[in-house]
Amino acid sequence: MARIVMKYGGTSVGDLVRIREVAQQVKIEADAGHEVAVIVSAMSGVTNQLVDYVDHAAKLCDLREYDVVVSSGEQVTAGLLAVVLQDIGVPARSWLGWQIPLRTDEAHGNARIEDVDTTDLVRRFAEGQVAVVAGFQGVDSRGRITTLGRGGSDTSAVALAAALGADRCDIYTDVDGVYTTDPRIVAKARKLDKITYEEMLEMASLGAKVLQTRSVEMAMKHRVRLQVRSSFERLPGTLVVDEDEIVEKAIVSGIAYSRDEAKVTLTNVPDRPGTAARIFGPLADAGINVDMIVQNAAVDDKTTGMTFTVRKSDLDRAVVVLKDQQPDLGYGELKADSNVVKVSVIGVGMRSHAGVAQSMFKTLAEKGINIQVISTSEIKVSVLVAEEYTELAVRSLHSAYGLDAT
Amino acid sequence: MARIVMKYGGTSVGDLVRIREVAQQVKIEADAGHEVAVIVSAMSGVTNQLVDYVDHAAKLCDLREYDVVVSSGEQVTAGLLAVVLQDIGVPARSWLGWQIPLRTDEAHGNARIEDVDTTDLVRRFAEGQVAVVAGFQGVDSRGRITTLGRGGSDTSAVALAAALGADRCDIYTDVDGVYTTDPRIVAKARKLDKITYEEMLEMASLGAKVLQTRSVEMAMKHRVRLQVRSSFERLPGTLVVDEDEIVEKAIVSGIAYSRDEAKVTLTNVPDRPGTAARIFGPLADAGINVDMIVQNAAVDDKTTGMTFTVRKSDLDRAVVVLKDQQPDLGYGELKADSNVVKVSVIGVGMRSHAGVAQSMFKTLAEKGINIQVISTSEIKVSVLVAEEYTELAVRSLHSAYGLDAT
Repeated sequence: MARIVMKYGGTSVGDLVRIREVAQQVKIEADAGHEVAVIVSAMSGVTNQLVDYVDHAAKLCDLREYDVVVSSGEQVTAGLLAVVLQDIGVPARSWLGWQIPLRTDEAHGNARIEDVDTTDLVRRFAEGQVAVVAGFQGVDSRGRITTLGRGGSDTSAVALAAALGADRCDIYTDVDGVYTTDPRIVAKARKLDKITYEEMLEMASLGAKVLQTRSVEMAMKHRVRLQVRSSFERLPGTLVVDEDEIVEKAIVSGIAYSRDEAKVTLTNVPDRPGTAARIFGPLADAGINVDMIVQNAAVDDKTTGMTFTVRKSDLDRAVVVLKDQQPDLGYGELKADSNVVKVSVIGVGMRSHAGVAQSMFKTLAEKGINIQVISTSEIKVSVLVAEEYTELAVRSLHSAYGLDAT
Repeated sequence: MARIVMKYGGTSVGDLVRIREVAQQVKIEADAGHEVAVIVSAMSGVTNQLVDYVDHAAKLCDLREYDVVVSSGEQVTAGLLAVVLQDIGVPARSWLGWQIPLRTDEAHGNARIEDVDTTDLVRRFAEGQVAVVAGFQGVDSRGRITTLGRGGSDTSAVALAAALGADRCDIYTDVDGVYTTDPRIVAKARKLDKITYEEMLEMASLGAKVLQTRSVEMAMKHRVRLQVRSSFERLPGTLVVDEDEIVEKAIVSGIAYSRDEAKVTLTNVPDRPGTAARIFGPLADAGINVDMIVQNAAVDDKTTGMTFTVRKSDLDRAVVVLKDQQPDLGYGELKADSNVVKVSVIGVGMRSHAGVAQSMFKTLAEKGINIQVISTSEIKVSVLVAEEYTELAVRSLHSAYGLDAT
């Protein structure tokens, strides 16, 4: 007997037909004698509609009320799946965030899980009952509903798996696993049998939308055995595991890209101590995350150039903030460019292999792709290039690192 | 300064445009310095859709899960109205049943309110905050969501008004008050300025769908000053009040009708003690309510006839139950007829005036309408007639009792 957490996203519970298919999958695990918690998202489209209501209700909305509205979608799915499970003879009940309770901080709209009380769930497991849990939601210390941000049901699932000490946490989705890169761009992309938490984290944060970044962080921290698999076929998916579980480490495991990038360049910035702080302080105050940063060498020992990236949706606000600061910063010109893409090469094997970055630069140079900004970490190299080269860059790198399926 | 409860039904909050209109009405009361609780239904159509989901999910469904699903509609409206109120400068927050808490028994799908804890609401009133309360829902002693049955938001409003000791409880709806009869049938129907709780109770239970019966019972018990009024026009509606508040009591206040009736007749029932119990016991056990009952005089001192009505939707089940009991009951024939309508004349003035029933029978006789069953109470006379006479009967009685508008 194992304790299993299963999570189904919006397309997997998109209508009653799909919900019945999910129920059959749950029944297989329950019939095998496992203790099962199923985490469900809202039926596909529902959350968007609810967000749309709130957006049209007021320009600025109280995020506590936003959470009341948008959390209702998962509530409906949880109730329906419990009904369908009972109908096919599987004892089940629904659990909302506040009923478990799954406690979060008070950062409405993007709350962080603080604690999951599994007492009641475990008691019901002992009675042979499946727990159907509304994902994406929790409750804060004041008894108000919170939501966990887009993709938050992944985090609900991992948090519950960690709290329950689950043997597995299976994320059922509309793809059958994690690929070496986006199969829509590279036909020869391969499904990975295993990937390390660190690599998955980079993949997720660099644009692969398979898992919410925060859920991977949490799985890594609590060593939750995570599997990304298809909700439509009964096939093994991709296991997200500890590095030491992977015997043959590929130097490069995958190529990720993100179009949600915009580049800002400030020219002739006076080169004196504290310049970076004066630039990035006001941006941080405005809640704008800055990603890749390059400071050019001072050309004349007096001024320097500063280039960095922000999310596309933050670009307009970043420009306003920086123009406001111009008199203080004393830079020459501000250039903004949103026609850029960040392409990244990821692999834990990089730690012990030199030359990965070098072959990336060489591959891109051979295709005539100009690199605008470079940023590296222990297990990834990212470059910013013009957006029009996205497909070419990803495909070339995928081949160059030997990732193509044979 | 007064304490006011306002309740808006589904059509009054049917979309964001309507919700904004509601917010403006609430603002008027809040700006006048009143303490305001607003109870909202689900946006029109939403509850039906949610019920439809559950109906299609399984033939027999766990009502606890039904409640989880269908209560989500009111949750959405409450959050949206709070957002819109804040947007126009009115401090507001939403309250779900479990957050207040509004405690009910465990009769899921049709729960009864046991207790409303107003501590938090009153504290927020003192801070100038409007309470936007999701109607139709509560929470049971096990922490599970309950719903109060169709029209339950009326009961939410009255229960809250009683618990808060509110000065008024205004039920805003798509009609502008309570009429002497259904204006769709009688063009000369008049809006009543006042009606007694007792009369309103009869009207509600006899088919006038203005208020949920249970809400009127509760208002009567707690002497809540109830007003039914239009959510589209700022005009006085109909006050539901104590009898002693009405100076000139009309003998008849209104004519109600209900098409949701079916007649069952058992012939040649052995006439011995306990026959009625043997007939109605099994029906009660099957959860079938029996309304009008007539036992004919025994023709031959040995057998009698028994006629009674049930709800149309219960007819098939009633027939099955009675056929099962046939060997025990030993009746001759079972006749079922759903082509009937119950027409009722209602008025507290009847108590002190003889002849009301007599003029009802005379009026119907003059129109050639055959009376099948008669039932009376202190303040109403009901007759069962063939359904095809509905309009004719209602119109004739409306004229006969001098209710027509001039």
